[in-house]
Amino acid sequence: MKPLHHKELLTVQWRRNAVQLIDQTKLPNKLVYLICTDHREIAKAIKSLVVRGAPAIGICAALALLLVTLNSKAKTERGLRSELERAGSLLISTRPTAININWAVRRILKISSKGKNVREIKRLVKREALKMLDDDILTNRKMGRAGSDLFYDGDVVMTHCNAGSLATATYGTALGVLRAAREEGKNLKVIATETRPVMQGSRLTAFELMHDHFDVRLISDTAVGYVMANRMVDKVIVGADRILRTGHVYNKIGTYQIATMAHIHKIPFYVAAPISTFDLKSSISEIKIEDRSGDEITKIKNILIAPKGIHTINPAFDITPPNLITGIITEAGLLEPPYQRSIDAIIKRCKRY
Amino acid sequence: MKPLHHKELLTVQWRRNAVQLIDQTKLPNKLVYLICTDHREIAKAIKSLVVRGAPAIGICAALALLLVTLNSKAKTERGLRSELERAGSLLISTRPTAININWAVRRILKISSKGKNVREIKRLVKREALKMLDDDILTNRKMGRAGSDLFYDGDVVMTHCNAGSLATATYGTALGVLRAAREEGKNLKVIATETRPVMQGSRLTAFELMHDHFDVRLISDTAVGYVMANRMVDKVIVGADRILRTGHVYNKIGTYQIATMAHIHKIPFYVAAPISTFDLKSSISEIKIEDRSGDEITKIKNILIAPKGIHTINPAFDITPPNLITGIITEAGLLEPPYQRSIDAIIKRCKRY
Repeated sequence: MKPLHHKELLTVQWRRNAVQLIDQTKLPNKLVYLICTDHREIAKAIKSLVVRGAPAIGICAALALLLVTLNSKAKTERGLRSELERAGSLLISTRPTAININWAVRRILKISSKGKNVREIKRLVKREALKMLDDDILTNRKMGRAGSDLFYDGDVVMTHCNAGSLATATYGTALGVLRAAREEGKNLKVIATETRPVMQGSRLTAFELMHDHFDVRLISDTAVGYVMANRMVDKVIVGADRILRTGHVYNKIGTYQIATMAHIHKIPFYVAAPISTFDLKSSISEIKIEDRSGDEITKIKNILIAPKGIHTINPAFDITPPNLITGIITEAGLLEPPYQRSIDAIIKRCKRY
Repeated sequence: MKPLHHKELLTVQWRRNAVQLIDQTKLPNKLVYLICTDHREIAKAIKSLVVRGAPAIGICAALALLLVTLNSKAKTERGLRSELERAGSLLISTRPTAININWAVRRILKISSKGKNVREIKRLVKREALKMLDDDILTNRKMGRAGSDLFYDGDVVMTHCNAGSLATATYGTALGVLRAAREEGKNLKVIATETRPVMQGSRLTAFELMHDHFDVRLISDTAVGYVMANRMVDKVIVGADRILRTGHVYNKIGTYQIATMAHIHKIPFYVAAPISTFDLKSSISEIKIEDRSGDEITKIKNILIAPKGIHTINPAFDITPPNLITGIITEAGLLEPPYQRSIDAIIKRCKRY
């Protein structure tokens, strides 16, 4: 395939007081952009998967709150803050499992509380949201450097879902690490799983890796065991939507069984995620796994591919326990088991600086 | 869904000197039949998955050879036998992994060698092929009785691909066992995996179980680990395309990882397959795993759902090792580990009668 553009894919951008998003529901066939000038448009875009990927939707939530301040007619700090809080709740409700929206909203609300008047709040929110957008790219580059040593020239790396440019502002988390390894001159091959039901693997990962001239092959989610048993995979790397203090990783449905198969075949299994993905407070029983519409399974592009009226079970995420994870790559370095200790240590270190 | 017919689904029938097949590529949207009067049409139907399922394609191969004898203008026994052999080779080449075509062709060729003249060969082949069609249904009923005790009232049973009516003449192997349990008054619920890439789970299993008013729910292949970890599955049952003397089971791609996940979650994993599925002679290195067109992954109903030109790995089958299998249900009874011993014993017993 000839790449549609030769430049980096810019998934989330701030341009002329608006948020410009790649409409990921149109990929891989069309690379089109959606312009949002209102936070409700962003909420809708997140809900309908126009934009997805934990870091990307976090950034989008921050920029959505920036739009709230631009559009607000509030005369008082209290009025503006209450608008921000309402918008924050709406944004959090769109995808309950990924923690990044929560993280972004909390960060913007916190900064807004420091503004002494409406004008100052608007200025602070703008500075913070745009810093978060810039930081995302920096974070991904740092994560790339922190993880690239784990990958060797000639490695075949399996990835699930999309933790790439299209899941972040650009560059990616898991795929960012592979990009960094390639920038160091290593030749990597990638096996992308289709990632049913929403097919982020075939539609997004395959698209962005071909765009960047990676050697990538696509498999059905059913072929994971086969390619591992036939020694066609050296390593696995995925992203994360939320990581608990215990090292339990919430990620795209299917991650858990890939991690299990990797464990059984003694294939290293890595998670790449920014510190903003860590949730030190919650326990498994407190986290809701988003149950999405059965239409994602029964229809493709509005064509019915299953019997009409069939019931479905369609969880968007699953939980990979820490014993299956070889390492967690963050912008602050590589975490290794026991995770409770390494996670606590890195969070402490990050807070110190 | 209202079932299209209230009667049993008759996947392979012999009617008016022709083979009548349900065109499974049109399911679940349309229940239409294809009439074949030539063995090459049957070979094409097998290759293009109009008819699939190890027992069903075995029966089809036998009936295809019956068509050869009907259409033959051969004047000598040798001429007719060589036509049968050529047709047999063509049929075997259509799907190299499933053993049943091989089994059916060998059986018909063997019987044809007993005919003393063209007329007698034709008579013997007709009797044998039609007996194999009838036997398939009897075999499935016996398998159902042999396995039904393993399933309890209220069980939720996961199945992969389609080992049902649509994989046999009718009734099914794995789903036949569930039908038999239901006929004994047990209320079972079924979870069907979609079974990418060809979606035999959503298109065929979901369809035939809804047709028969089973309580069935559809999941993506990625959700297997999730539903098992959440204790939503009591047992797993699948069919088989070939079973080695060691107990290694060749079945639809994805079976191996389901068996692994079941093993880890201590969920019994059963295989239901007729004795004709056993291959006592071959070893793993001798069996070719069919590698099918990448179009199965990249297109749905001719719509491109992945980047143009993406490379794929698309094996049709994988191998489940015996240590993951709780039991193998056959028409001659339940086989338990160690399989080499129980398989040898049952084959010996079957030969004696």
